[in-house]
Amino acid sequence: MTDPVLPVFVLVRPQMGENIGAAARAMWNFGLDRMRIVAPRDGWPNEKAVAMASGAGRLLDEAQLTETMAEAVADCTLVLATTARPRGLTKPVLSPEQAMALAAERIAAGEKVAVIFGPERAGLENEEIARANAIISVPVNPVFASLNLAQCVLLVAYEWMRKTGEVVHELREPGGSDWANAGEIEKLGDHYEQRMEEAGFFFPEHKADSMKMNLRNLWSRLPLTQADVRMLHGVLRQMVRWKERG
Amino acid sequence: MTDPVLPVFVLVRPQMGENIGAAARAMWNFGLDRMRIVAPRDGWPNEKAVAMASGAGRLLDEAQLTETMAEAVADCTLVLATTARPRGLTKPVLSPEQAMALAAERIAAGEKVAVIFGPERAGLENEEIARANAIISVPVNPVFASLNLAQCVLLVAYEWMRKTGEVVHELREPGGSDWANAGEIEKLGDHYEQRMEEAGFFFPEHKADSMKMNLRNLWSRLPLTQADVRMLHGVLRQMVRWKERG
Repeated sequence: MTDPVLPVFVLVRPQMGENIGAAARAMWNFGLDRMRIVAPRDGWPNEKAVAMASGAGRLLDEAQLTETMAEAVADCTLVLATTARPRGLTKPVLSPEQAMALAAERIAAGEKVAVIFGPERAGLENEEIARANAIISVPVNPVFASLNLAQCVLLVAYEWMRKTGEVVHELREPGGSDWANAGEIEKLGDHYEQRMEEAGFFFPEHKADSMKMNLRNLWSRLPLTQADVRMLHGVLRQMVRWKERG
Repeated sequence: MTDPVLPVFVLVRPQMGENIGAAARAMWNFGLDRMRIVAPRDGWPNEKAVAMASGAGRLLDEAQLTETMAEAVADCTLVLATTARPRGLTKPVLSPEQAMALAAERIAAGEKVAVIFGPERAGLENEEIARANAIISVPVNPVFASLNLAQCVLLVAYEWMRKTGEVVHELREPGGSDWANAGEIEKLGDHYEQRMEEAGFFFPEHKADSMKMNLRNLWSRLPLTQADVRMLHGVLRQMVRWKERG
Protein backbone atom coordinates (compact mmCIF):
# COMPACT_ATOMS: atom_id res chain seq x y z
CA MET A 1 0.00 0.00 0.00
CA THR A 2 1.59 3.25 -1.11
CA ASP A 3 -0.95 5.43 0.60
CA PRO A 4 -2.34 5.16 4.12
CA VAL A 5 -6.07 4.69 3.94
CA LEU A 6 -8.05 7.28 5.83
CA PRO A 7 -11.70 7.98 6.48
CA VAL A 8 -13.40 10.53 4.25
CA PHE A 9 -15.04 13.49 6.01
CA VAL A 10 -18.15 14.73 4.22
CA LEU A 11 -19.54 18.23 4.87
CA VAL A 12 -23.20 18.31 3.89
CA ARG A 13 -24.61 21.68 2.75
CA PRO A 14 -22.09 23.78 4.70
CA GLN A 15 -23.06 27.44 4.85
CA MET A 16 -20.13 29.68 5.78
CA GLY A 17 -16.91 29.39 3.80
CA GLU A 18 -14.99 30.16 7.01
CA ASN A 19 -16.38 27.02 8.59
CA ILE A 20 -15.34 24.89 5.63
CA GLY A 21 -11.81 26.28 5.94
CA ALA A 22 -11.80 25.74 9.72
CA ALA A 23 -12.99 22.16 9.22
CA ALA A 24 -10.09 21.56 6.80
CA ARG A 25 -7.63 22.86 9.42
CA ALA A 26 -9.22 20.71 12.12
CA MET A 27 -8.84 17.60 9.92
CA TRP A 28 -5.27 18.31 8.91
CA ASN A 29 -4.24 18.89 12.54
CA PHE A 30 -4.73 15.16 12.96
CA GLY A 31 -3.43 14.06 9.58
CA LEU A 32 -6.75 13.63 7.79
CA ASP A 33 -6.94 15.04 4.26
CA ARG A 34 -9.89 13.50 2.43
CA MET A 35 -12.77 15.94 2.31
CA ARG A 36 -15.98 15.75 0.31
CA ILE A 37 -18.45 18.60 0.14
CA VAL A 38 -22.14 18.30 -0.68
CA ALA A 39 -23.93 21.33 -2.16
CA PRO A 40 -22.14 24.16 -0.32
CA ARG A 41 -24.54 27.08 0.10
CA ASP A 42 -22.25 29.72 -1.41
CA GLY A 43 -20.95 27.68 -4.35
CA TRP A 44 -17.45 26.39 -5.00
CA PRO A 45 -14.61 27.30 -4.92
CA ASN A 46 -15.11 29.61 -1.96
CA GLU A 47 -12.62 32.42 -1.24
CA LYS A 48 -13.43 32.64 2.45
CA ALA A 49 -12.86 28.93 2.85
CA VAL A 50 -9.45 29.24 1.21
CA ALA A 51 -8.48 32.23 3.37
CA MET A 52 -9.43 30.42 6.57
CA ALA A 53 -7.82 27.10 5.62
CA SER A 54 -4.36 28.65 5.11
CA GLY A 55 -1.92 25.77 5.63
CA ALA A 56 -4.64 23.20 5.00
CA GLY A 57 -5.67 24.63 1.62
CA ARG A 58 -4.68 21.46 -0.20
CA LEU A 59 -7.69 19.71 1.36
CA LEU A 60 -9.99 22.20 -0.34
CA ASP A 61 -8.20 21.92 -3.69
CA GLU A 62 -8.61 18.17 -3.60
CA ALA A 63 -12.12 18.10 -2.09
CA GLN A 64 -14.70 16.20 -4.10
CA LEU A 65 -17.90 18.09 -4.75
CA THR A 66 -21.28 16.41 -5.16
CA GLU A 67 -24.92 17.45 -5.33
CA THR A 68 -26.28 14.95 -2.81
CA MET A 69 -25.08 13.06 0.22
CA ALA A 70 -26.01 9.80 -1.51
CA GLU A 71 -23.48 10.53 -4.28
CA ALA A 72 -20.82 11.57 -1.79
CA VAL A 73 -20.94 8.25 0.05
CA ALA A 74 -21.77 5.93 -2.85
CA ASP A 75 -18.39 4.14 -2.72
CA CYS A 76 -18.34 3.74 1.09
CA THR A 77 -19.33 0.64 3.06
CA LEU A 78 -19.50 2.33 6.46
CA VAL A 79 -21.27 5.67 6.76
CA LEU A 80 -21.30 7.40 10.16
CA ALA A 81 -23.43 10.52 10.67
CA THR A 82 -22.62 13.03 13.40
CA THR A 83 -25.76 14.35 15.03
CA ALA A 84 -27.00 15.36 18.43
CA ARG A 85 -30.48 14.03 17.86
CA PRO A 86 -31.23 10.54 16.55
CA ARG A 87 -34.89 11.72 16.41
CA GLY A 88 -36.60 8.41 16.68
CA LEU A 89 -34.66 6.52 14.01
CA THR A 90 -33.49 3.10 15.12
CA LYS A 91 -29.77 3.30 14.58
CA PRO A 92 -26.69 2.42 16.63
CA VAL A 93 -25.37 5.45 18.54
CA LEU A 94 -21.60 5.54 18.98
CA SER A 95 -19.29 7.85 20.90
CA PRO A 96 -16.52 9.42 18.78
CA GLU A 97 -14.15 6.94 20.37
CA GLN A 98 -16.25 3.90 19.50
CA ALA A 99 -16.91 5.26 16.03
CA MET A 100 -13.24 5.77 15.18
CA ALA A 101 -12.36 2.35 16.61
CA LEU A 102 -14.94 0.85 14.28
CA ALA A 103 -13.71 2.99 11.36
CA ALA A 104 -10.10 1.90 11.93
CA GLU A 105 -11.14 -1.74 12.02
CA ARG A 106 -13.16 -1.51 8.82
CA ILE A 107 -10.46 0.42 7.00
CA ALA A 108 -7.92 -2.19 8.06
CA ALA A 109 -10.25 -4.76 6.47
CA GLY A 110 -10.13 -2.85 3.18
CA GLU A 111 -13.42 -0.97 3.49
CA LYS A 112 -14.11 2.70 2.75
CA VAL A 113 -15.48 4.79 5.60
CA ALA A 114 -17.27 8.16 5.52
CA VAL A 115 -18.05 10.47 8.44
CA ILE A 116 -20.88 12.91 7.71
CA PHE A 117 -21.22 16.41 9.20
CA GLY A 118 -24.43 18.37 8.74
CA PRO A 119 -24.82 22.09 8.06
CA GLU A 120 -24.31 24.68 10.79
CA ARG A 121 -27.35 25.09 13.01
CA ALA A 122 -29.90 22.90 11.20
CA GLY A 123 -27.82 19.71 11.14
CA LEU A 124 -28.55 16.73 8.93
CA GLU A 125 -32.03 16.00 7.61
CA ASN A 126 -33.71 12.83 8.79
CA GLU A 127 -33.58 11.52 5.21
CA GLU A 128 -29.78 11.90 5.34
CA ILE A 129 -29.42 10.28 8.75
CA ALA A 130 -31.55 7.40 7.47
CA ARG A 131 -28.82 6.68 4.91
CA ALA A 132 -26.10 6.25 7.55
CA ASN A 133 -25.16 2.94 9.14
CA ALA A 134 -24.70 4.47 12.58
CA ILE A 135 -24.75 7.78 14.43
CA ILE A 136 -21.84 9.49 16.15
CA SER A 137 -22.97 11.52 19.12
CA VAL A 138 -20.50 13.59 21.15
CA PRO A 139 -21.51 13.26 24.81
CA VAL A 140 -21.74 16.96 25.62
CA ASN A 141 -23.21 18.70 28.64
CA PRO A 142 -26.96 18.08 28.34
CA VAL A 143 -27.76 21.63 29.41
CA PHE A 144 -25.20 23.22 27.06
CA ALA A 145 -24.35 21.67 23.71
CA SER A 146 -22.75 24.28 21.51
CA LEU A 147 -20.14 22.54 19.37
CA ASN A 148 -19.62 24.27 16.05
CA LEU A 149 -18.86 22.47 12.81
CA ALA A 150 -15.07 22.70 13.03
CA GLN A 151 -15.08 21.65 16.69
CA CYS A 152 -17.13 18.60 15.88
CA VAL A 153 -14.73 17.75 13.04
CA LEU A 154 -11.82 18.35 15.43
CA LEU A 155 -13.08 15.93 18.08
CA VAL A 156 -13.75 13.13 15.60
CA ALA A 157 -10.37 13.69 13.90
CA TYR A 158 -8.70 13.68 17.33
CA GLU A 159 -10.30 10.33 18.10
CA TRP A 160 -9.11 8.99 14.75
CA MET A 161 -5.58 9.95 15.76
CA ARG A 162 -6.02 8.38 19.20
CA LYS A 163 -7.39 5.15 17.80
CA THR A 164 -5.20 4.44 14.84
CA GLY A 165 -2.26 3.44 16.97
CA GLU A 166 -4.40 0.73 18.52
CA VAL A 167 -5.58 -2.51 17.01
CA VAL A 168 -9.22 -3.12 17.76
CA HIS A 169 -10.75 -6.55 17.54
CA GLU A 170 -14.47 -6.59 17.13
CA LEU A 171 -16.68 -9.35 15.97
CA ARG A 172 -18.13 -8.82 12.54
CA GLU A 173 -20.33 -11.17 10.60
CA PRO A 174 -18.66 -13.95 8.61
CA GLY A 175 -17.99 -13.68 4.91
CA GLY A 176 -16.20 -10.36 5.44
CA SER A 177 -15.00 -8.94 2.19
CA ASP A 178 -18.00 -8.05 0.07
CA TRP A 179 -20.17 -5.71 2.06
CA ALA A 180 -22.58 -3.67 -0.01
CA ASN A 181 -21.51 -0.06 -0.37
CA ALA A 182 -23.77 2.94 0.17
CA GLY A 183 -24.46 3.31 -3.55
CA GLU A 184 -25.73 -0.25 -3.72
CA ILE A 185 -27.88 0.25 -0.62
CA GLU A 186 -29.25 3.45 -2.14
CA LYS A 187 -30.33 1.56 -5.27
CA LEU A 188 -31.90 -1.16 -3.17
CA GLY A 189 -33.82 1.50 -1.27
CA ASP A 190 -34.90 3.13 -4.54
CA HIS A 191 -36.09 -0.18 -5.95
CA TYR A 192 -38.21 -1.00 -2.89
CA GLU A 193 -39.54 2.51 -2.55
CA GLN A 194 -40.60 2.63 -6.20
CA ARG A 195 -42.26 -0.77 -6.29
CA MET A 196 -43.96 -0.36 -2.93
CA GLU A 197 -45.25 3.00 -4.10
CA GLU A 198 -46.80 1.30 -7.13
CA ALA A 199 -48.20 -1.39 -4.89
CA GLY A 200 -49.91 1.20 -2.69
CA PHE A 201 -47.88 0.39 0.44
CA PHE A 202 -47.34 3.96 1.59
CA PHE A 203 -50.77 4.56 2.99
CA PRO A 204 -52.36 6.58 4.51
CA GLU A 205 -50.95 9.58 2.65
CA HIS A 206 -49.96 11.57 5.75
CA LYS A 207 -47.81 8.69 6.97
CA ALA A 208 -46.17 8.03 3.59
CA ASP A 209 -43.04 10.10 4.24
CA SER A 210 -42.25 8.54 7.57
CA MET A 211 -42.97 5.05 6.20
CA LYS A 212 -40.54 5.70 3.34
CA MET A 213 -37.91 6.93 5.72
CA ASN A 214 -38.32 3.93 8.00
CA LEU A 215 -37.96 1.57 5.06
CA ARG A 216 -34.89 3.48 3.85
CA ASN A 217 -33.44 3.44 7.36
CA LEU A 218 -33.91 -0.32 7.60
CA TRP A 219 -31.67 -1.05 4.61
CA SER A 220 -28.85 1.20 5.73
CA ARG A 221 -29.00 -0.07 9.30
CA LEU A 222 -28.57 -3.71 8.37
CA PRO A 223 -25.16 -5.25 7.70
CA LEU A 224 -25.91 -6.36 4.13
CA THR A 225 -23.48 -8.10 1.82
CA GLN A 226 -23.60 -7.70 -1.95
CA ALA A 227 -25.15 -11.17 -2.15
CA ASP A 228 -27.88 -10.10 0.31
CA VAL A 229 -28.61 -7.06 -1.80
CA ARG A 230 -28.87 -9.19 -4.94
CA MET A 231 -31.25 -11.54 -3.17
CA LEU A 232 -33.43 -8.70 -1.87
CA HIS A 233 -33.62 -7.23 -5.39
CA GLY A 234 -34.46 -10.70 -6.67
CA VAL A 235 -37.27 -11.20 -4.14
CA LEU A 236 -38.90 -7.96 -5.22
CA ARG A 237 -38.39 -8.56 -8.93
CA GLN A 238 -39.96 -11.98 -8.63
CA MET A 239 -43.02 -10.56 -6.86
CA VAL A 240 -43.47 -8.10 -9.71
CA ARG A 241 -43.13 -10.86 -12.30
CA TRP A 242 -45.67 -12.92 -10.39
CA LYS A 243 -48.07 -10.00 -10.35
CA GLU A 244 -47.57 -9.41 -14.04
CA ARG A 245 -48.30 -13.01 -14.90
CA GLY A 246 -51.63 -12.26 -13.23
CA MET B 1 -19.64 16.94 49.14
CA THR B 2 -22.41 19.14 47.83
CA ASP B 3 -20.44 20.16 44.78
CA PRO B 4 -18.49 17.93 42.38
CA VAL B 5 -14.86 18.95 42.36
CA LEU B 6 -13.55 19.96 38.97
CA PRO B 7 -10.20 21.06 37.58
CA VAL B 8 -9.65 24.80 37.21
CA PHE B 9 -8.77 26.04 33.72
CA VAL B 10 -6.43 29.05 33.75
CA LEU B 11 -6.09 31.35 30.72
CA VAL B 12 -2.78 33.17 30.92
CA ARG B 13 -2.61 36.62 29.26
CA PRO B 14 -5.37 35.91 26.72
CA GLN B 15 -5.54 38.55 23.98
CA MET B 16 -8.86 38.51 22.15
CA GLY B 17 -12.08 38.69 24.17
CA GLU B 18 -13.71 36.41 21.59
CA ASN B 19 -11.24 33.68 22.44
CA ILE B 20 -11.96 33.97 26.16
CA GLY B 21 -15.66 33.61 25.41
CA ALA B 22 -15.04 30.67 23.08
CA ALA B 23 -12.90 29.00 25.74
CA ALA B 24 -15.76 29.37 28.25
CA ARG B 25 -18.14 27.71 25.79
CA ALA B 26 -15.67 24.91 25.13
CA MET B 27 -15.35 24.23 28.88
CA TRP B 28 -19.06 24.29 29.57
CA ASN B 29 -19.76 21.89 26.69
CA PHE B 30 -18.11 19.27 28.88
CA GLY B 31 -19.45 20.47 32.20
CA LEU B 32 -16.40 22.42 33.38
CA ASP B 33 -17.11 25.81 34.93
CA ARG B 34 -14.10 26.95 36.93
CA MET B 35 -12.13 29.52 34.98
CA ARG B 36 -9.30 31.75 36.13
CA ILE B 37 -7.85 34.50 34.01
CA VAL B 38 -4.37 35.97 34.35
CA ALA B 39 -3.78 39.54 33.11
CA PRO B 40 -6.09 39.63 30.08
CA ARG B 41 -4.65 42.02 27.47
CA ASP B 42 -7.81 44.09 27.01
CA GLY B 43 -8.80 44.37 30.68
CA TRP B 44 -11.76 42.92 32.48
CA PRO B 45 -14.73 42.57 32.13
CA ASN B 46 -14.60 42.24 28.36
CA GLU B 47 -17.71 42.81 26.25
CA LYS B 48 -16.55 40.70 23.35
CA ALA B 49 -15.89 37.79 25.68
CA VAL B 50 -19.39 38.09 27.09
CA ALA B 51 -20.96 38.28 23.60
CA MET B 52 -19.10 35.19 22.44
CA ALA B 53 -19.75 33.15 25.59
CA SER B 54 -23.55 33.50 25.34
CA GLY B 55 -24.93 30.47 27.20
CA ALA B 56 -21.65 30.02 29.09
CA GLY B 57 -21.54 33.61 30.40
CA ARG B 58 -21.76 32.45 34.00
CA LEU B 59 -18.19 31.14 33.73
CA LEU B 60 -16.97 34.65 32.95
CA ASP B 61 -19.01 36.22 35.77
CA GLU B 62 -17.48 33.80 38.22
CA ALA B 63 -13.96 33.78 36.76
CA GLN B 64 -11.19 34.69 39.20
CA LEU B 65 -8.83 37.36 37.96
CA THR B 66 -5.16 37.53 38.98
CA GLU B 67 -2.06 39.44 37.93
CA THR B 68 0.27 36.46 37.64
CA MET B 69 0.10 32.78 36.91
CA ALA B 70 1.75 32.06 40.28
CA GLU B 71 -1.19 33.68 42.11
CA ALA B 72 -3.72 31.88 39.90
CA VAL B 73 -2.40 28.45 40.84
CA ALA B 74 -1.35 29.16 44.43
CA ASP B 75 -4.00 26.87 45.94
CA CYS B 76 -3.44 23.97 43.48
CA THR B 77 -1.33 20.87 44.12
CA LEU B 78 -1.17 19.71 40.52
CA VAL B 79 -0.47 22.21 37.76
CA LEU B 80 -0.52 21.04 34.15
CA ALA B 81 0.64 23.41 31.39
CA THR B 82 -0.54 22.97 27.80
CA THR B 83 2.19 23.69 25.30
CA ALA B 84 3.38 22.40 21.99
CA ARG B 85 7.02 22.93 22.86
CA PRO B 86 8.63 21.73 26.07
CA ARG B 87 11.61 23.87 24.94
CA GLY B 88 14.31 21.96 26.73
CA LEU B 89 12.72 22.00 30.17
CA THR B 90 12.92 18.66 31.92
CA LYS B 91 9.30 17.96 32.65
CA PRO B 92 6.96 15.02 32.21
CA VAL B 93 5.03 15.31 28.95
CA LEU B 94 1.50 13.88 29.06
CA SER B 95 -1.14 13.36 26.40
CA PRO B 96 -4.50 15.04 27.18
CA GLU B 97 -5.79 11.59 28.03
CA GLN B 98 -3.00 10.81 30.49
CA ALA B 99 -3.24 14.28 31.97
CA MET B 100 -6.97 14.06 32.67
CA ALA B 101 -6.58 10.57 34.11
CA LEU B 102 -4.00 11.98 36.50
CA ALA B 103 -6.20 14.99 37.28
CA ALA B 104 -9.18 12.77 38.06
CA GLU B 105 -7.06 10.63 40.35
CA ARG B 106 -5.67 13.62 42.24
CA ILE B 107 -9.05 15.31 42.56
CA ALA B 108 -10.51 12.08 43.91
CA ALA B 109 -7.75 12.18 46.53
CA GLY B 110 -8.86 15.68 47.58
CA GLU B 111 -6.29 17.72 45.65
CA LYS B 112 -6.89 20.84 43.55
CA VAL B 113 -5.82 20.69 39.92
CA ALA B 114 -5.16 23.51 37.45
CA VAL B 115 -4.70 23.30 33.69
CA ILE B 116 -2.87 26.26 32.19
CA PHE B 117 -3.39 27.65 28.68
CA GLY B 118 -1.02 30.25 27.25
CA PRO B 119 -1.85 33.29 25.16
CA GLU B 120 -2.75 33.02 21.47
CA ARG B 121 0.31 32.72 19.23
CA ALA B 122 3.13 33.22 21.73
CA GLY B 123 2.13 30.51 24.19
CA LEU B 124 3.41 30.27 27.74
CA GLU B 125 6.73 31.75 28.82
CA ASN B 126 9.43 29.38 30.00
CA GLU B 127 9.09 30.89 33.50
CA GLU B 128 5.45 29.89 33.51
CA ILE B 129 6.05 26.39 32.19
CA ALA B 130 8.69 26.01 34.89
CA ARG B 131 5.95 26.43 37.51
CA ALA B 132 3.95 23.50 36.19
CA ASN B 133 4.30 19.95 37.45
CA ALA B 134 3.87 18.47 34.00
CA ILE B 135 3.19 19.43 30.41
CA ILE B 136 0.15 18.50 28.37
CA SER B 137 1.00 18.14 24.69
CA VAL B 138 -1.71 17.38 22.13
CA PRO B 139 -0.22 14.97 19.57
CA VAL B 140 -0.99 16.96 16.42
CA ASN B 141 0.26 16.50 12.87
CA PRO B 142 3.95 17.43 13.06
CA VAL B 143 3.74 19.30 9.75
CA PHE B 144 0.57 21.18 10.68
CA ALA B 145 -0.17 22.19 14.27
CA SER B 146 -2.75 24.94 14.27
CA LEU B 147 -4.94 24.48 17.32
CA ASN B 148 -6.39 27.73 18.57
CA LEU B 149 -6.96 28.53 22.24
CA ALA B 150 -10.59 27.38 22.39
CA GLN B 151 -9.81 24.18 20.47
CA CYS B 152 -7.03 23.33 22.90
CA VAL B 153 -9.41 23.99 25.81
CA LEU B 154 -12.04 21.87 24.04
CA LEU B 155 -9.79 18.83 23.64
CA VAL B 156 -8.64 18.87 27.27
CA ALA B 157 -12.22 19.39 28.51
CA TYR B 158 -13.34 16.53 26.25
CA GLU B 159 -10.73 14.25 27.80
CA TRP B 160 -11.91 15.28 31.27
CA MET B 161 -15.42 14.24 30.29
CA ARG B 162 -14.11 10.96 28.79
CA LYS B 163 -12.26 10.14 31.98
CA THR B 164 -14.97 11.07 34.44
CA GLY B 165 -18.20 11.40 32.47
CA GLU B 166 -21.44 9.79 33.38
CA VAL B 167 -22.77 9.86 29.84
CA VAL B 168 -22.98 6.23 28.85
CA HIS B 169 -23.11 5.30 25.22
CA GLU B 170 -24.49 2.05 24.03
CA LEU B 171 -22.99 0.14 21.17
CA ARG B 172 -26.29 -1.56 20.56
CA GLU B 173 -29.26 0.12 18.98
CA PRO B 174 -31.46 2.17 21.28
CA GLY B 175 -34.73 0.70 22.48
CA GLY B 176 -32.92 -2.60 22.94
CA SER B 177 -35.92 -4.35 24.45
CA ASP B 178 -37.88 -4.98 21.30
CA TRP B 179 -35.59 -7.14 19.23
CA ALA B 180 -37.49 -9.78 17.34
CA ASN B 181 -37.15 -13.19 18.95
CA ALA B 182 -36.29 -16.39 17.11
CA GLY B 183 -39.93 -17.43 16.84
CA GLU B 184 -40.81 -14.15 15.13
CA ILE B 185 -37.86 -14.49 12.76
CA GLU B 186 -38.95 -18.04 12.00
CA LYS B 187 -42.44 -16.84 11.05
CA LEU B 188 -40.97 -14.11 8.88
CA GLY B 189 -38.86 -16.74 7.14
CA ASP B 190 -41.91 -18.98 6.67
CA HIS B 191 -43.92 -16.11 5.22
CA TYR B 192 -41.25 -15.21 2.67
CA GLU B 193 -40.47 -18.78 1.79
CA GLN B 194 -44.11 -19.61 1.20
CA ARG B 195 -44.90 -16.57 -0.91
CA MET B 196 -41.69 -16.76 -2.89
CA GLU B 197 -42.42 -20.40 -3.55
CA GLU B 198 -45.82 -19.44 -4.99
CA ALA B 199 -44.14 -16.68 -6.99
CA GLY B 200 -41.71 -19.16 -8.55
CA PHE B 201 -38.59 -17.60 -7.00
CA PHE B 202 -36.81 -20.85 -6.12
CA PHE B 203 -35.68 -21.78 -9.59
CA PRO B 204 -34.02 -23.81 -11.05
CA GLU B 205 -35.23 -26.76 -9.03
CA HIS B 206 -31.81 -28.11 -8.10
CA LYS B 207 -30.85 -24.80 -6.52
CA ALA B 208 -34.11 -24.35 -4.64
CA ASP B 209 -32.89 -25.79 -1.34
CA SER B 210 -29.79 -23.65 -1.15
CA MET B 211 -31.74 -20.54 -2.17
CA LYS B 212 -34.21 -21.20 0.62
CA MET B 213 -31.44 -21.62 3.10
CA ASN B 214 -29.78 -18.40 2.03
CA LEU B 215 -33.03 -16.48 2.39
CA ARG B 216 -33.67 -18.06 5.79
CA ASN B 217 -30.12 -17.29 6.86
CA LEU B 218 -30.49 -13.66 5.85
CA TRP B 219 -33.36 -13.01 8.26
CA SER B 220 -31.69 -14.66 11.19
CA ARG B 221 -28.36 -12.98 10.55
CA LEU B 222 -29.78 -9.44 10.57
CA PRO B 223 -30.36 -7.49 13.80
CA LEU B 224 -34.11 -7.04 13.28
CA THR B 225 -36.47 -5.33 15.68
CA GLN B 226 -40.12 -6.29 16.02
CA ALA B 227 -41.00 -3.16 14.05
CA ASP B 228 -38.64 -4.25 11.25
CA VAL B 229 -40.29 -7.65 11.16
CA ARG B 230 -43.75 -6.06 10.94
CA MET B 231 -42.55 -3.86 8.08
CA LEU B 232 -41.03 -6.79 6.20
CA HIS B 233 -44.27 -8.76 6.59
CA GLY B 234 -46.17 -5.67 5.41
CA VAL B 235 -43.99 -5.28 2.32
CA LEU B 236 -44.69 -8.85 1.27
CA ARG B 237 -48.39 -8.73 2.10
CA GLN B 238 -48.78 -5.58 0.05
CA MET B 239 -47.07 -7.18 -2.94
CA VAL B 240 -49.56 -10.05 -2.75
CA ARG B 241 -52.51 -7.66 -2.53
CA TRP B 242 -51.13 -5.78 -5.52
CA LYS B 243 -50.87 -8.99 -7.49
CA GLU B 244 -54.38 -10.02 -6.51
CA ARG B 245 -55.84 -6.72 -7.63
CA GLY B 246 -54.35 -7.79 -10.98
